[in-house]
Amino acid sequence: MQGTSQTYRDAADLMTRGESHRVWSLIVTIFGDMAQGAGDAISGAALSRLVGMMGVRPEAMRVALHRLRKDGWIDSRREGRGSLHWLTPFGRAQSAEASPRIYDRVRSLSGPWHLLMSGGADGTGRVQLEGALLTGDYLPIGSQVVLGQGPLPNDLHGLFGAEVSRFQVPGWLRHQVCPAEIMALYSALEADLRAVTAILDRGPPLCALETAAIRLLAVHSWRRLLFRHPDLPDAFFPEGWRGPDCRILFCDLVARLPAPGLDRVEAAA
Amino acid sequence: MQGTSQTYRDAADLMTRGESHRVWSLIVTIFGDMAQGAGDAISGAALSRLVGMMGVRPEAMRVALHRLRKDGWIDSRREGRGSLHWLTPFGRAQSAEASPRIYDRVRSLSGPWHLLMSGGADGTGRVQLEGALLTGDYLPIGSQVVLGQGPLPNDLHGLFGAEVSRFQVPGWLRHQVCPAEIMALYSALEADLRAVTAILDRGPPLCALETAAIRLLAVHSWRRLLFRHPDLPDAFFPEGWRGPDCRILFCDLVARLPAPGLDRVEAAA
Repeated sequence: MQGTSQTYRDAADLMTRGESHRVWSLIVTIFGDMAQGAGDAISGAALSRLVGMMGVRPEAMRVALHRLRKDGWIDSRREGRGSLHWLTPFGRAQSAEASPRIYDRVRSLSGPWHLLMSGGADGTGRVQLEGALLTGDYLPIGSQVVLGQGPLPNDLHGLFGAEVSRFQVPGWLRHQVCPAEIMALYSALEADLRAVTAILDRGPPLCALETAAIRLLAVHSWRRLLFRHPDLPDAFFPEGWRGPDCRILFCDLVARLPAPGLDRVEAAA
Repeated sequence: MQGTSQTYRDAADLMTRGESHRVWSLIVTIFGDMAQGAGDAISGAALSRLVGMMGVRPEAMRVALHRLRKDGWIDSRREGRGSLHWLTPFGRAQSAEASPRIYDRVRSLSGPWHLLMSGGADGTGRVQLEGALLTGDYLPIGSQVVLGQGPLPNDLHGLFGAEVSRFQVPGWLRHQVCPAEIMALYSALEADLRAVTAILDRGPPLCALETAAIRLLAVHSWRRLLFRHPDLPDAFFPEGWRGPDCRILFCDLVARLPAPGLDRVEAAA
């Protein structure tokens, strides 16, 4: 982080909290935030400079890019003495799907929702229920029920299906959706977002690359926490959950740290 | 059944199918059909004549009336040399609740409905779910889910509740709601109702008491079958279920066999 301002270092420390982010995931955040459009690309030099500001070494970045190419997220090509990287159509689709969950100021998730149910103890439909869970689109509730977003699918594979217009969620299910450990992480993130905001209020303006880096670290911290639990309406979370407050603080923070255009990042690299 | 017409005996045979109805339940049918209003009462003599036409001996009727009084359905008093019987407020309420299910020409049950769910294998909410089942207002689905009519109750006693706008019902649940044995009873009742209708079409008109007795036997057969399964929309019943056809046949039959006024029954007794 040499050559960065004290304000930047103080804010970046809070957003990394001492732990090093997984580089693979950090690069997904960067492309999702800055280069999600068709035709967007980031040079190896600019990417290296950005992740360097977040404490990531060039070798770690190269290993992560290799893995992202292998998994079908990223495509790359040589360009003069360097390289150029961009999201594949798969990577763009994944990023686009995640974006509302990350960036929407209010997450209403108004529904409809649906429940799929097996026959219970005698095992009727148990296999079909496990099939639904394997898609990753369902929340298990006990051993006999799964909850999914949207209207009832056409083919329920023999499960009992119910489209739901209203929920009442008891404590045991709220704690299953968001256990104490994740509740604590929300409280910690809220404090960190407030502290970063205060640091930016006090300090001199950041340069373009510092702005981009703090923005990306904030997006990454927020995204990582969000994806540790299912995407459900607020009524599914325990009393005292700091999610909606974190969302407002996050949106305010990234609004004052606008993503620089790719051309400015390339120019600074 | 002495002194009754051949037409009556042929029709009554079909509606009793050789088996003797439980007298207790038959008397509930009679009061529900003929004397559900506040102030309605039936004399012992008229009741005795009516059930006599259905093959019930006076001693059996007296035993049944005793039990109905003990259970809070019926109240009685001496009246001259005989007695007078009427439904208690409880009996009237029970009859009124059952009436739409018995007499409505179309049973739409359009909802809303709601599901209550326990936490599954770990037993969370198991006791509360059993409490809901004890009310008799819920259909169990496996060991973790119960289905009830109406909007979500205010207090779910810690269960997960969902108000349902649409269902898709698999075969295993349809066969739980209406197993093969009850399916067969519906098919048999359909045939019997058609046969009784044909007998009435062919024969000379019944007298007032015969009309009342055939009507009551039809109501009783229909009511007994209806209450052998939960009251659910048609979508919860197996393919080939004769319920809606039976309902139309039953309604047509009782429409041509109007309940005589209590005064006519008393005059005939």
